[in-house]
Amino acid sequence: MSTITAISTAPGIGGIAVIRVSGRDALKNCNVIFSPKKKTTSFLHQEANTISFGSIINDKNETIDEVLVSVFRAPHSFTGEDVVEISCHGSAYVQQQILQLLIEHGCVLAQPGEFTQRAFLNNKLDLSQAEAVADLIASTSAASHRMALNQMRGGFSNELLKLRTQLLDFVSLVELELDFNEEDIEFADRTQLKSLATTIERLILKLSDSFRVGNALKNGIPVALVGETNVGKSTLLNVLLNEDKAIVSDIHGTTRDVIEDSVNISGITFRFIDTAGIRDTKDKIENMGIERTYQKIEQAAIVLWILDCTQLSEHMEWLTDRIAKRAAGKKVILVFNKIDRITEDERIVLTQLFEQFDGERIYISAKERVNTDGLQKALIQAAQLPEINPGDVVVSNVRHFEALQNAHSAISRVIDGLDSGISGDFLSQDIRECMHFLGEITGQISNDEILGNIFGKFCIGK
Amino acid sequence: MSTITAISTAPGIGGIAVIRVSGRDALKNCNVIFSPKKKTTSFLHQEANTISFGSIINDKNETIDEVLVSVFRAPHSFTGEDVVEISCHGSAYVQQQILQLLIEHGCVLAQPGEFTQRAFLNNKLDLSQAEAVADLIASTSAASHRMALNQMRGGFSNELLKLRTQLLDFVSLVELELDFNEEDIEFADRTQLKSLATTIERLILKLSDSFRVGNALKNGIPVALVGETNVGKSTLLNVLLNEDKAIVSDIHGTTRDVIEDSVNISGITFRFIDTAGIRDTKDKIENMGIERTYQKIEQAAIVLWILDCTQLSEHMEWLTDRIAKRAAGKKVILVFNKIDRITEDERIVLTQLFEQFDGERIYISAKERVNTDGLQKALIQAAQLPEINPGDVVVSNVRHFEALQNAHSAISRVIDGLDSGISGDFLSQDIRECMHFLGEITGQISNDEILGNIFGKFCIGK
Repeated sequence: MSTITAISTAPGIGGIAVIRVSGRDALKNCNVIFSPKKKTTSFLHQEANTISFGSIINDKNETIDEVLVSVFRAPHSFTGEDVVEISCHGSAYVQQQILQLLIEHGCVLAQPGEFTQRAFLNNKLDLSQAEAVADLIASTSAASHRMALNQMRGGFSNELLKLRTQLLDFVSLVELELDFNEEDIEFADRTQLKSLATTIERLILKLSDSFRVGNALKNGIPVALVGETNVGKSTLLNVLLNEDKAIVSDIHGTTRDVIEDSVNISGITFRFIDTAGIRDTKDKIENMGIERTYQKIEQAAIVLWILDCTQLSEHMEWLTDRIAKRAAGKKVILVFNKIDRITEDERIVLTQLFEQFDGERIYISAKERVNTDGLQKALIQAAQLPEINPGDVVVSNVRHFEALQNAHSAISRVIDGLDSGISGDFLSQDIRECMHFLGEITGQISNDEILGNIFGKFCIGK
Repeated sequence: MSTITAISTAPGIGGIAVIRVSGRDALKNCNVIFSPKKKTTSFLHQEANTISFGSIINDKNETIDEVLVSVFRAPHSFTGEDVVEISCHGSAYVQQQILQLLIEHGCVLAQPGEFTQRAFLNNKLDLSQAEAVADLIASTSAASHRMALNQMRGGFSNELLKLRTQLLDFVSLVELELDFNEEDIEFADRTQLKSLATTIERLILKLSDSFRVGNALKNGIPVALVGETNVGKSTLLNVLLNEDKAIVSDIHGTTRDVIEDSVNISGITFRFIDTAGIRDTKDKIENMGIERTYQKIEQAAIVLWILDCTQLSEHMEWLTDRIAKRAAGKKVILVFNKIDRITEDERIVLTQLFEQFDGERIYISAKERVNTDGLQKALIQAAQLPEINPGDVVVSNVRHFEALQNAHSAISRVIDGLDSGISGDFLSQDIRECMHFLGEITGQISNDEILGNIFGKFCIGK
């Protein structure tokens, strides 16, 4: 297997940058270009987990940079191979020069995620842990960070491995029966087996149920802002997002491109969806926009229905009907905007008007920032996401979710088969299928295409 | 002195990021948040220049990340203080969390350049070496990189220190004479002293002369493209810059913003200045543009005067007069464009026409890329920059150049004073002034304002 190298720190200019080298020839290749300041021992014999200071020199004996070089030795490294990390000055030019020298001296430029892929292939991480590394790097909120970290530390995999081991015991007994087919012997107690399968089904369901939460935490909870034109939707959106920018601007690299229209409130990411103003119109094009609004309501988990206190719609019933129909089953929050511009008496009338409405009601002024923090609290409550604690098992990866769903339908067939007294060979086939899908998650079952898909999404240098 | 911390790698998301901590409490502050995996020895006693694996934990005992932690101990570190480097996953969120924890536990966020400033204050680097660190990080070409590296390795400072020591011997003797003023004794042999001062002057001149080269290498050699309208200036510029982009695109972080209209040819940076086409016009606004063209010619070191082979100007004399006047003393290269569209006979006529012209002549087709490499070679030759070799002393910093000029005028006064038999106290004053300016470069003489100016331009984390 080749010795790979890549710049592992973020691209661009920084104080320092780290170039990572991994593989059998990591020390040998680096030895050609690294001249340690202390010449007492050869770099080839540098102790594991130590750092030495020296120079990177090219073939003309010119110094490229003064660097710190860390050595890790197989199997006690991230990849499980010999690893050298060169900490150089953060100049784009210097980074590129050192990388080129390493490639000239036998290293191969690493593919995205190739270091982590090697860690997986060397059993330093299972597949779900490796995927968690990418999630961890991409995490932008406390919750997504914690999920990734829990998954990386193996909490998730351990649960799956337990299930799979139980299934293996199960299927072994059933397959043993097949050898004694004619004798009609049952090694596997069907009642016990069914109880086991039911337990497993419950665990799979618990995991796949957690995907709703996991996905919302990872990608943000979709919140649709709807209402008639001119009720102040855009102002409200800006208020919510501006407060976000203030929070986010401290964090390097999180740009509007990345978290477009998302805001992190108390560790939960909300993804705000602005919509076209709804009104009763015969204009074809405008109606198309309104149709899209309805679709967005359907995609959302929470609907903020914004009303202008000073000017309640004449079409209130018509509107209620249209929005309520689309928002069925979703959390709807009625947001009364421009509260600063009505009297206390008018407000009481307003409250009575909407007595029938059984969702949350919030009175704000987006422009004057009255009670916008109240709205934020209401959003957090509406999100109703359980707190993720260290060790909690939450599925946040679509690939895992799909595998769990497949595993679930297989285990359901096992249970049905037990009920209907299906033959052992069919039973064993269903169990094996369930095991297959569980194994896909942790990587006991994998193929190059799956691996390529997973690691190709990593950044280079990881 | 406080213990400082900052993210030292480039901002943004990468595979890994490095957070640096420096100061007396570096280990103590990190010990609160770092839990090594191997518990055999306390982190506080981790050996210098070693790395340990473990977790960063917050006050609620939650894991923030799994990290590698390197320990360096005073005085054997970059800053000369105890230094801890935390290598964490490159998530913006993780970086920010760890930084916050460090600050909560007693660290102070480092100012830009503060690590290097401490290295200077602890005599790990002199001032010109510290400035070279910033240049090294910003270097984008082989030449600017080599200059910075030579300077960082002290070649520059050593030369200056030698000069200063010689001056000190000089001034001591002169000042000794002042104690014996009435006796009219000369301890310092004026002939020897003058020879020494002349040697010093020559060295200062050599250094300050190197600034032309140093500055050109660091900031690029300005090349003006001039000519009449429609001779193909913009096409040529694009060809030159496009070839650049192909080279540069491999290097992370070098964007068009940074090296706007610059191209690196064989390790020399050229800064191309496109100009408005020159023509004889009465249009006021157009004339203003043409006036700017003339100004740009004056800023340039090399002038590419582009002509259209197929359509020589009717105003050739007028044009020659205008351009030649502005380009006096500069390298002018006559570029005959669209060479693919004339016959060999026409070319011979062309050559005869410009027989009188004593600059370089190049025949190209920018559009068809005929002989554009010939043009590049002509540019390199016109640049006439001596190759920078390891160990060469080249001044590339404006601050140093100014100090050298001041030192030069002081040492000139010394020489003049010796010639005119000036009194010892005036002589000593001039020598001290020369020493002062030389000391400003290496930092023997410095004040907070100078230091603030220098280190404020560094990136954070360095």
